Amino acid sequence: MKKIRIGLIGAGRIGKVHAEAISTQATAELVAVSDVNLPAAQALALKWHVSKVYQAYRPILDDPSVDAVAICSSTDTHAQIIIEAAQAGKHIFCEKPIDYSLEKIDAALEAVEKAGVKLTVGFNRRFDPNFRRVQELVSSGAIGTPRILRITSRDPTPPPIEYIKVSGGIFLDMTIHDFDMARFLIGSEVTQVFVAGGVMVDSKIGDAGDLDTAITTLWFANGAIGTIDNCREAAYGYDQRVEVFGSLGMAQAENNTPDRHILSTHEAVSSAKPLYFFLERYMDAYKTEMSAFTEAILNNAPLSITGLDGRAPVAIGLAAMKSYQEGRVVRIEEVH
Amino acid sequence: MKKIRIGLIGAGRIGKVHAEAISTQATAELVAVSDVNLPAAQALALKWHVSKVYQAYRPILDDPSVDAVAICSSTDTHAQIIIEAAQAGKHIFCEKPIDYSLEKIDAALEAVEKAGVKLTVGFNRRFDPNFRRVQELVSSGAIGTPRILRITSRDPTPPPIEYIKVSGGIFLDMTIHDFDMARFLIGSEVTQVFVAGGVMVDSKIGDAGDLDTAITTLWFANGAIGTIDNCREAAYGYDQRVEVFGSLGMAQAENNTPDRHILSTHEAVSSAKPLYFFLERYMDAYKTEMSAFTEAILNNAPLSITGLDGRAPVAIGLAAMKSYQEGRVVRIEEVH
Amino acid sequence: MKKIRIGLIGAGRIGKVHAEAISTQATAELVAVSDVNLPAAQALALKWHVSKVYQAYRPILDDPSVDAVAICSSTDTHAQIIIEAAQAGKHIFCEKPIDYSLEKIDAALEAVEKAGVKLTVGFNRRFDPNFRRVQELVSSGAIGTPRILRITSRDPTPPPIEYIKVSGGIFLDMTIHDFDMARFLIGSEVTQVFVAGGVMVDSKIGDAGDLDTAITTLWFANGAIGTIDNCREAAYGYDQRVEVFGSLGMAQAENNTPDRHILSTHEAVSSAKPLYFFLERYMDAYKTEMSAFTEAILNNAPLSITGLDGRAPVAIGLAAMKSYQEGRVVRIEEVH
Amino acid sequence: MKKIRIGLIGAGRIGKVHAEAISTQATAELVAVSDVNLPAAQALALKWHVSKVYQAYRPILDDPSVDAVAICSSTDTHAQIIIEAAQAGKHIFCEKPIDYSLEKIDAALEAVEKAGVKLTVGFNRRFDPNFRRVQELVSSGAIGTPRILRITSRDPTPPPIEYIKVSGGIFLDMTIHDFDMARFLIGSEVTQVFVAGGVMVDSKIGDAGDLDTAITTLWFANGAIGTIDNCREAAYGYDQRVEVFGSLGMAQAENNTPDRHILSTHEAVSSAKPLYFFLERYMDAYKTEMSAFTEAILNNAPLSITGLDGRAPVAIGLAAMKSYQEGRVVRIEEVH
Repeated sequence: MKKIRIGLIGAGRIGKVHAEAISTQATAELVAVSDVNLPAAQALALKWHVSKVYQAYRPILDDPSVDAVAICSSTDTHAQIIIEAAQAGKHIFCEKPIDYSLEKIDAALEAVEKAGVKLTVGFNRRFDPNFRRVQELVSSGAIGTPRILRITSRDPTPPPIEYIKVSGGIFLDMTIHDFDMARFLIGSEVTQVFVAGGVMVDSKIGDAGDLDTAITTLWFANGAIGTIDNCREAAYGYDQRVEVFGSLGMAQAENNTPDRHILSTHEAVSSAKPLYFFLERYMDAYKTEMSAFTEAILNNAPLSITGLDGRAPVAIGLAAMKSYQEGRVVRIEEVH
Repeated sequence: MKKIRIGLIGAGRIGKVHAEAISTQATAELVAVSDVNLPAAQALALKWHVSKVYQAYRPILDDPSVDAVAICSSTDTHAQIIIEAAQAGKHIFCEKPIDYSLEKIDAALEAVEKAGVKLTVGFNRRFDPNFRRVQELVSSGAIGTPRILRITSRDPTPPPIEYIKVSGGIFLDMTIHDFDMARFLIGSEVTQVFVAGGVMVDSKIGDAGDLDTAITTLWFANGAIGTIDNCREAAYGYDQRVEVFGSLGMAQAENNTPDRHILSTHEAVSSAKPLYFFLERYMDAYKTEMSAFTEAILNNAPLSITGLDGRAPVAIGLAAMKSYQEGRVVRIEEVH
Repeated sequence: MKKIRIGLIGAGRIGKVHAEAISTQATAELVAVSDVNLPAAQALALKWHVSKVYQAYRPILDDPSVDAVAICSSTDTHAQIIIEAAQAGKHIFCEKPIDYSLEKIDAALEAVEKAGVKLTVGFNRRFDPNFRRVQELVSSGAIGTPRILRITSRDPTPPPIEYIKVSGGIFLDMTIHDFDMARFLIGSEVTQVFVAGGVMVDSKIGDAGDLDTAITTLWFANGAIGTIDNCREAAYGYDQRVEVFGSLGMAQAENNTPDRHILSTHEAVSSAKPLYFFLERYMDAYKTEMSAFTEAILNNAPLSITGLDGRAPVAIGLAAMKSYQEGRVVRIEEVH
Repeated sequence: MKKIRIGLIGAGRIGKVHAEAISTQATAELVAVSDVNLPAAQALALKWHVSKVYQAYRPILDDPSVDAVAICSSTDTHAQIIIEAAQAGKHIFCEKPIDYSLEKIDAALEAVEKAGVKLTVGFNRRFDPNFRRVQELVSSGAIGTPRILRITSRDPTPPPIEYIKVSGGIFLDMTIHDFDMARFLIGSEVTQVFVAGGVMVDSKIGDAGDLDTAITTLWFANGAIGTIDNCREAAYGYDQRVEVFGSLGMAQAENNTPDRHILSTHEAVSSAKPLYFFLERYMDAYKTEMSAFTEAILNNAPLSITGLDGRAPVAIGLAAMKSYQEGRVVRIEEVH
């Protein structure tokens, strides 16, 4: 079977996830790794038997045996690498977000279109079987016309403050996944956003100019409305639930747990907590995502997540931050 | 055992509920019924073996053998009857809302205070065992400091348009229960409100100047934030869920169902829908509520729901409607 | 509305339950109470405003204003009182079991048939909405042909040893409800029984010649098989679940809980324990049961639970004890 | 990292499962495959890049570069291959059952002991996270002293009649997993067995001398009792649940499902069916099982499932069939 030969750019936390996703699937092969932190690239190469290891990403783009790249470097480098990779004729898998600047995103998407390569963005949650099932129920008409969307998305523990400072803020770092999920589940564009939020977890997050807890209201072009609640910390683990309520019913996805035990004692009936964090919850989704990417290349088929799908949540995120700062409803077109 | 002798003013839908709640408890006795629609009062009296039946409520207030009144007449009459009942020295159970006007409410509360009688307002959901358990968990500190409140409150089917027109609008008729629940669960006052909503169920509701679907964002004095989603119609029945998320965990209340069966076939695993509507879901809560009222009178103890608890949700409701109409955050004090 | 005038014979624990069930329904009236322990009868009469109170039951049978009797005295008196009540032309509600002797049961049923009065037996669980729903699903064909029945029936705490000694043994005192439930759910007679059991809760129960934990295998005339597991003690409360597995699917009934809260903390996800014991779990069923009895009398309609339904579980219970003692399969006809 | 070099004997359905389990783990390498059906071996070798392919298993045993074998051939060949593999100094993973004859099993275990190689048996369900969690709860004392074990084990669809005829019967083919689970969960030997069963799924199964539906009662050396219910067909899919009830509580494992969606409509609240069959439910368990095998070899550590664990369920199975045929309780020692 033909295998897509992939070069991995960035060997940090998410790079490791994608290295495993590439290495354990039948239609892909990890052939090169680069990282500005060379030992990180070397460690990853050792683990997955990759012979080509670099500090710079350019040799990967210059390698004619490489079919595609997975961009897992820091966000501020994504747009530039996309442009160069497109010009080098490589298909592109880019971690979210493409960039924090819509101008840079537009430049990158233009380069991709000009080069005629495929580009997808790492919104892995679309490949989670729970959310996928809800999306199928909504799009099949099983719940009628959507009226209300509810997303709960809470992390088990906040990232280090140093990460927070360069994260782009909660809306572009964390809620961006929920903005993508909102578009995926409702099948319609977000037109307006309103945010109520605060610093409830750690005052250092506030000192860094960010917030850690938020309720975001969304308006969709098809008339539906939605609410997303986020928190950077949840005592019981990663809380990832969605609910779409429509004219004929409601489709929900509950949390995944490591097992289905039930313990009944004189104190209570108890069961397992949600899977701890994104690696536990979404590892299968990361693999399915990468498999969808390589199969689309192999079959020259369209990707389900496009460059525009990568752009839209960034626009919503920018509008959300503006809404929080100004205390008012912000139309998405205000940030375009 | 001493029984509180109660006169019922208003023999409509909710009057019937309270007649049953009064008649089936050990510490209360239904001794008089009035309704502007006399046959309605007569039918109720017949069913519960009540000998005194009137078209006007005044004879009930003038009857020295009556200890207390349950006011179930139309909302526009509540404040006036409260004032007269207080002056007549009767303890007062008043259906929600006391009134749509904060001025009239204040006048009624002043009369009650002057007369030294007891007044409570029919926020029956506080006596639902599910919500009560969540409130206990929150107030006991089991979930730490509250951060996010989520309330879902959807009716199975909208009321007749004629009712909608005189209902005071969705926020004073339907969401008012959720505003009370929000204050009950978080134990802190609401300071601001923001509404996103629309007409999704029936355009006639929009024609009547009301909306039927809404997401309301709440800010609390203690720093927590909350979201309430409402719809006048839910295909699967009455949807009444709450969730309080705090620094140490989360307490939720799921819907009640008529039974706990599970049917597994080649098609799906299915179970019972939620109890159909408020009579099915809250009949026990109505009884507990009335029992709390009569026991407070018997023991001369304070009531858990006071006149101010009756006033606050009306203020929030007025602010919510203002927010919807003006598309902006409204501070509660703006409507005081 | 015509009310059935009922005399209550026996004012102990279960007598109190039925007094409440009678007094709070629209079609019945409690008019007389007797108990060999006269103060017990007097206390009950006071509570429910009953004017006729006796130590002997005979005055109740001799009272022409009494339509029906509820027999809640000790089991050894049931058969004799049934015979006398039938001869006195009273309709009869008899607590389970009718007797421990099939001969005495047959004599009682014969008297009832001769007198043409109605007789029902207190298998209240048939009126529990959970079990009723399972029975409807089975009888409607939703799960196809029944293959396997599973009943779990565990008490929160064993009764006093003094009660155990006169209880007739676990099979006639506790499992008898499950034998009735088995016949109700499968809609077919039990033909054979096999028991594995032991004394695991309290050795005093073994000293009294009884067992406290058992797994009973049942064979039905229609070819289905079943298993019942019992224990006199369950740390987490009253465990009352059933499951019918058939050719097209499975119908189950889970436990009822006092509420539907879910608490998620860093330790676990926990929820409410089952309702504590039979009064909490089945109070509504006791009321529905009594209502079914009085409505059948009012409408001269057949009762859903007949004298033969009272006899069959006793026969199964006797066979079960024989199986336990002899360590072999026992056909029900062996004890007839 | 050192990898255990494994030769696979038998490339049928379960051989394919183990080939994947071996090939996708870090500490094992699939180096040779044999099957009497050579094309089956060749297809498997092609898929997993294995260069050595044989029709006979002997070349694998004679290959000094092979560290261990996975025996997935037909059951009647297991014992002989174990003996030869042991003599060749190979560590052994053998699919269940080792054999249907206790004599042959004993001979195989003796050869293993003499050779000092490691042997484990494929009771993969012990590695399912649900059952593992229940076992941990029981062995940790969380539910006190075990009293009652309940296992439900139902297949979605019966195997072909041709397979049934050579399967060794339901107890040695299907229930054998449950007998192992019973010993695993209770941590005590089974001393007696009693079976009630019948042919309810397909009369051809009865014609083949087997049954398809059974309730098996178990007695354990530590005083606990248990019940297993089996059926060769379940309309809603693979039903794999366990429950251990003890003096301090109850631990249960519910079925796994492909997702956690909930769909609420006017008809019902529905959710996903159990995972379809053993490949879906236990694929992860197969991988963990193989990983436990290779890690025990690498670390020269004891295996959690031993040869005696492979023998015991066969003895219980033989006793169960005898109980069914003779309609009586059978002590396990009767078949030794």
